[in-house]
Amino acid sequence: MTSRDDHYMRRAIELAARGHGGTSPNPVVGCVVVDPTGEIVGEGFHAYAGGPHAEIVALRQAGERARGATAYVTLEPCDHTGRTGPCTAALLQAGVARVVVAVPDPNPVAAGGAETLLRHGVTVDVGVLAAEAERVNEEWLTYMRARRPFVTWKFAATIDGRSAAADGTSKWITSPEARADVHRLRAASDAIVAGIGTVLADDPRLTVRTPEPRRTRPVLRVVVDSGARTPAGARVLDGEAPTLVAVADDADPPPHLGDAVRLPRADGGLDLRALLAELHRRQVVSVLLEGGPTLAGSFLREGLVDRVVGYLAPALLGAGSAALGPAGVTTIAERHRLEFEEVTRIGPDLKVVLRPSRKEGN
Amino acid sequence: MTSRDDHYMRRAIELAARGHGGTSPNPVVGCVVVDPTGEIVGEGFHAYAGGPHAEIVALRQAGERARGATAYVTLEPCDHTGRTGPCTAALLQAGVARVVVAVPDPNPVAAGGAETLLRHGVTVDVGVLAAEAERVNEEWLTYMRARRPFVTWKFAATIDGRSAAADGTSKWITSPEARADVHRLRAASDAIVAGIGTVLADDPRLTVRTPEPRRTRPVLRVVVDSGARTPAGARVLDGEAPTLVAVADDADPPPHLGDAVRLPRADGGLDLRALLAELHRRQVVSVLLEGGPTLAGSFLREGLVDRVVGYLAPALLGAGSAALGPAGVTTIAERHRLEFEEVTRIGPDLKVVLRPSRKEGN
Repeated sequence: MTSRDDHYMRRAIELAARGHGGTSPNPVVGCVVVDPTGEIVGEGFHAYAGGPHAEIVALRQAGERARGATAYVTLEPCDHTGRTGPCTAALLQAGVARVVVAVPDPNPVAAGGAETLLRHGVTVDVGVLAAEAERVNEEWLTYMRARRPFVTWKFAATIDGRSAAADGTSKWITSPEARADVHRLRAASDAIVAGIGTVLADDPRLTVRTPEPRRTRPVLRVVVDSGARTPAGARVLDGEAPTLVAVADDADPPPHLGDAVRLPRADGGLDLRALLAELHRRQVVSVLLEGGPTLAGSFLREGLVDRVVGYLAPALLGAGSAALGPAGVTTIAERHRLEFEEVTRIGPDLKVVLRPSRKEGN
Repeated sequence: MTSRDDHYMRRAIELAARGHGGTSPNPVVGCVVVDPTGEIVGEGFHAYAGGPHAEIVALRQAGERARGATAYVTLEPCDHTGRTGPCTAALLQAGVARVVVAVPDPNPVAAGGAETLLRHGVTVDVGVLAAEAERVNEEWLTYMRARRPFVTWKFAATIDGRSAAADGTSKWITSPEARADVHRLRAASDAIVAGIGTVLADDPRLTVRTPEPRRTRPVLRVVVDSGARTPAGARVLDGEAPTLVAVADDADPPPHLGDAVRLPRADGGLDLRALLAELHRRQVVSVLLEGGPTLAGSFLREGLVDRVVGYLAPALLGAGSAALGPAGVTTIAERHRLEFEEVTRIGPDLKVVLRPSRKEGN
């Protein structure tokens, strides 16, 4: 493990990132094949579910020059035959002498790749730039390890934390530029989740109004509606995209909600872990939680928010709906601690991306 | 007015800015003296009230080389004898051939400098980089033109806009780095204003705990306390710095508030324009409004906030006191529109500086 290894793995991670938004329910993966002189002879990434794996793309490009080469792969090569053949077989057949892996595959079905390669005399190094490679694949790794989708909570508010004025009006707190960015967030998610309060108040479409060239499945719309109150005429039921309405198991849904999924109640709403388990079952890798304040507060209280994306408008309201409702915090020491990961100006607004803090204490 | 003029005036503005925090109740002023070959032969700025004016410092440095030179001054040279002699006389005596001014002096006592210079055969150009020079002197210009102090509202909150948890605890939402920055803001202000709610809830000192090398007057503490409820033991009355308690003219202050200033009531509180007029009378050029939410809302409603400085902590509360109380906004179209002027990371927190928007509409 040298800085040369880091160099090539960094390139593989860059390639992996290009697959974002297209590979679900597969991971993003990048691969670089380097010949003994240090020349990159093949590059590839996994672009869409059902498409060729990164290793296959890179090996094809390398051709005969893969013989005796080193392959850098962001995720342990798969050892099973899914929609495509095992990558381990392809690497062996190409005559690759060494495989450098960033992150071991947590998928029990696909794992074992490193072992297979070792057994066939290939040198294998695991863990190069593991942290960076984990980050590029965090949605899928959360999906695999926690057996639930990766949850991004998105909110839009004034800098005093209001998402609507006292009379309920909120169009438009943020700018067209910020709203376009939200559509990019939606396009990169497998599902968009909203609470019944938001559906009743704003009647949102929850569709993606930005090109989605690589996505092979439409984005699923999810309404958390314990009382089965989603009206027949609601825009989320317009058929433009699939919609899952989640109701309480003791609810009595009207006919237009006949295919609603039934979940246990918890804390005055639905059991959110059961909801996420259901979404996991449907191969939803990533969820964009879009509101409202009550549902967002419940997700936070349950520790089910992995990332926060806020759009802060340069405006003050002083009254009206808060961006976030009760989140299980009574005293300051209990606050949900995060870290700013990204702060950018977007049109006249500010976009902030935050992560739960890994440090304890203040 | 050439780009050469802009170049030298920009330097004069840089010099003026060095006086920030020290010159009150005087303006900040910078001066550059340039000989006919284009060489800068003298530079100066006004550093503290009672100290030499920028022109005097620059002319002293230039000495004989000021003869036939051009003087760039960010503010029209004074024409009256105050604590120092008139700068016009000094410029004439030094033999300066041309004076370039950014902003005319709005002070009726000191104005007339340009006219005097012209009358004595000096070429005078006014308006070079006026917008930049207005900005560097905005506190003093607001003080002179609006006959009230320039008001900066400072708040600290979580990114969901809360400044305290549900149980009232708020120590410490922001980091030591952000709190140190607040002390720099305080040190650059002539007065710190807080409402009685904040005094009763937090018992703040409202003192400057950072070195104030150049300030010639201590920062005035101001409590807006219509009902004369400031307790005798309150820290703001500790004598560490002067304190002005403002009570309603019909209040009955206890003996320890005997020297309180009496002001008319308005909208359930004090008449804030009367308060600012009183501070103007006391030569308070700039005010740092530190809370709480109710008082800040009143200042905003009255259009009396010139700048907003927010410290946003990477945390979520979901309940507790909002950073801003009712500010006269009922519907979204009435929101207080601002513009981000500055966005910086400060320790783990985010510092945002905003200005009221000059544009109308969305």
